Amino acid sequence: MSNALRKKIASKEAVIGVIGLGYIGLSLLDVFGKAGFSLVGYDKSKEKVQMLKKKDSYINYLSLDFLFNLLSKKKFTPSADSDILKKADVLVISVPTSLDKHHVPELSNLRAAFQTVISYLKKDQLVVVQSSTYPGTTEDELLPLLKKSQLKVGKDFYLAHVPEIADIGNPSYNFIDVPRMVSGITPTCLKMAELLYESIGATVVPCSCPKVAESAKLLQNTYRLVNISLINEMKIMLDRMGIDIWEVVEAASSKPFGFTPFYPGPGIGGDCIPIDPFYLVWRAKASGGPTTLIEQSGNIDDGMAIYVVNKVIQGLNTREKSIRGAKTLVLGVGYKKDVNDIRQSPGLRVLSILKSMLADVHYHDPFVPEIASLPEFPELHLKSIHFKYDQLPQYDAVIIVTDHSFYDWDRIVDSSQLIIDTRNVTAKIPGAKGKVVKA
Amino acid sequence: MSNALRKKIASKEAVIGVIGLGYIGLSLLDVFGKAGFSLVGYDKSKEKVQMLKKKDSYINYLSLDFLFNLLSKKKFTPSADSDILKKADVLVISVPTSLDKHHVPELSNLRAAFQTVISYLKKDQLVVVQSSTYPGTTEDELLPLLKKSQLKVGKDFYLAHVPEIADIGNPSYNFIDVPRMVSGITPTCLKMAELLYESIGATVVPCSCPKVAESAKLLQNTYRLVNISLINEMKIMLDRMGIDIWEVVEAASSKPFGFTPFYPGPGIGGDCIPIDPFYLVWRAKASGGPTTLIEQSGNIDDGMAIYVVNKVIQGLNTREKSIRGAKTLVLGVGYKKDVNDIRQSPGLRVLSILKSMLADVHYHDPFVPEIASLPEFPELHLKSIHFKYDQLPQYDAVIIVTDHSFYDWDRIVDSSQLIIDTRNVTAKIPGAKGKVVKA
Repeated sequence: MSNALRKKIASKEAVIGVIGLGYIGLSLLDVFGKAGFSLVGYDKSKEKVQMLKKKDSYINYLSLDFLFNLLSKKKFTPSADSDILKKADVLVISVPTSLDKHHVPELSNLRAAFQTVISYLKKDQLVVVQSSTYPGTTEDELLPLLKKSQLKVGKDFYLAHVPEIADIGNPSYNFIDVPRMVSGITPTCLKMAELLYESIGATVVPCSCPKVAESAKLLQNTYRLVNISLINEMKIMLDRMGIDIWEVVEAASSKPFGFTPFYPGPGIGGDCIPIDPFYLVWRAKASGGPTTLIEQSGNIDDGMAIYVVNKVIQGLNTREKSIRGAKTLVLGVGYKKDVNDIRQSPGLRVLSILKSMLADVHYHDPFVPEIASLPEFPELHLKSIHFKYDQLPQYDAVIIVTDHSFYDWDRIVDSSQLIIDTRNVTAKIPGAKGKVVKA
Repeated sequence: MSNALRKKIASKEAVIGVIGLGYIGLSLLDVFGKAGFSLVGYDKSKEKVQMLKKKDSYINYLSLDFLFNLLSKKKFTPSADSDILKKADVLVISVPTSLDKHHVPELSNLRAAFQTVISYLKKDQLVVVQSSTYPGTTEDELLPLLKKSQLKVGKDFYLAHVPEIADIGNPSYNFIDVPRMVSGITPTCLKMAELLYESIGATVVPCSCPKVAESAKLLQNTYRLVNISLINEMKIMLDRMGIDIWEVVEAASSKPFGFTPFYPGPGIGGDCIPIDPFYLVWRAKASGGPTTLIEQSGNIDDGMAIYVVNKVIQGLNTREKSIRGAKTLVLGVGYKKDVNDIRQSPGLRVLSILKSMLADVHYHDPFVPEIASLPEFPELHLKSIHFKYDQLPQYDAVIIVTDHSFYDWDRIVDSSQLIIDTRNVTAKIPGAKGKVVKA
């Protein structure tokens, strides 16, 4: 094991280089910066790097104050030129992994990051894959590429997989509070990665190999996908029996063992839960599956926005109105409460379906001023309305998709003609009855 | 509301009558007995009643000492003659609900119990349905029958549904520690049932109607069915990739939020988790579903015993032996650790498949001396072997199905030729490698 790298980590003299400056990359830089390391960050997006250099943030749910402070002190350098990574003793890959429209992994980001790593691989360096990806990525895809360098893994350089775990927008869990699953190609790779994460005070959970760590991360997200889809399927089932799913979940939650409540909603958004399980499906197909529950959960999730729109149609129908021409307002396109991230957002899916049915579509989101030029929704060009409670009566239907803290639900119930509530935020409001359709 | 019944409950002078003297019925009698109530119990099985009268138990995981004490004091009378229920002020239905071999609810027990209730319904009486059943059973099936009596619900008599919640064999949760979901047909029915359960010190969780309580109970068991099936499907998937599911679950469990570990196994047994979710499916079909995740989870569970037997075949194959004629020993046919209940037991399923493949089948279970005359497995007539570690070498394959505390896994690994381990109990035993196939 390289004493040189070990000492640099222990003394915090190692330079941490991060590839991919999204939420996860920046979170990681923040934590390593706070521990005293010098930082470099590379992102192919010139726009993002420019914003960072101007101390401007593109993520509303992460404080970058500390990183901006390091920027001033020249202890953090973001760049759209990968040569910045020449200085790095540790290279962390934290690029986003996504799916194409056929639910097949879009590996181009990851593969580009691998090429970047190859360009800057050097002796006594630790390479950490942090992106969520299919089991075998680190060992079967990246390792063979790095072996071409003639450097020897576990001796000249170290290769590790340390999955990211975060609950976006939840301030109860800081990076340091979440144990890190750490894995390495060889025992010395594992040891070096453990040293790195222990140096910042993290609790380390060693795994026998990268495939176990990769699979464990996907299991965590698969568990959530399947359970949210189960409760969404039960919502539809119980609705058809005249039973309120929210009351049922609340009652069931009284069980003190063996039950964890999940809550229904308009579909799953974000860049983890709707994505990662399909990396597992894709990989598993190559060895014969089986992947039935994950795939079926994906099918259920795909249908949720349509279910919501059907509830809009039903609500309008009781008022003898068609969806065509109806003036509709979607509240919330951030995929999660108080978050400005619209990746895989159910709000976008609902807007797209409404538009395809020739409704007059509008939206409001306090964190998302504009929707434009999205590859998945090229038809959507909208600006958030200027939200005023006294303007709500003009809408034929108000559709609550995301329960941002910004909204005063009592006033929304009071002012609206018809509400489609996917979050049960109107359940206890007097006057909701007759106006609200649960979806 | 009947002051007479209210006072009888408060003073513990009410006589509690239970229909169905299985684990749940006896647990309930025990708790009400401890609170000071007099008890009568009816079961159609003369054999069970005879055993109780002789202070003999048919359930190894429930202490009946207190009930037997009440029996001596004549404060508890079990009977196979339903006329014993004439004395009851409270009638609790706790008969088992099961499925036929087509996975369709077998409602005959429940309907017979309803007829019993009709025969003994009287003024100022509380009827509680405690059996797990489909949403609507209490309101749409039992209530119309009781209404024929000319007695008025909520005024002359009270009808409630209070689902049973238990973790069989887990001593950490006493009856009183588990909050009770309580529901009634009318507000006074709910109130009367609340009074009853509060009188024994239980925490009461009121539900708006019996359908919510019935659905909540089924949701709890559905959650477990789906998650166990998910992890079993992932076990097969990861096995095909050469990844150990147990290591993956252990690593994933380090996540401090949003994840609950479930563990793989040979299939789900008992009279709750493999049964109750299909009451929901059956009911939901009548209103258009959807029930895809529950049904698929059932399909996965149906395949688990076959998966285990395939691992036996693979293990024997590496030793150039066929399953036909192989001497096989199944350890554990109780469906759960240290429990003598064999309902829906995966051990029975494994034995049945092995037998159909012409293996020489044997089993051992410290709690189950004999397998005979089971309607689902008429071909199985077996007595538990007399277990001796030094006899293990004579078996071609030892199949660990239930991890009873009785077994010394080190000695089993030491003495056996080939072990198929469905519970991961041999994982850390030196010498397991080469001898153990995980299944």
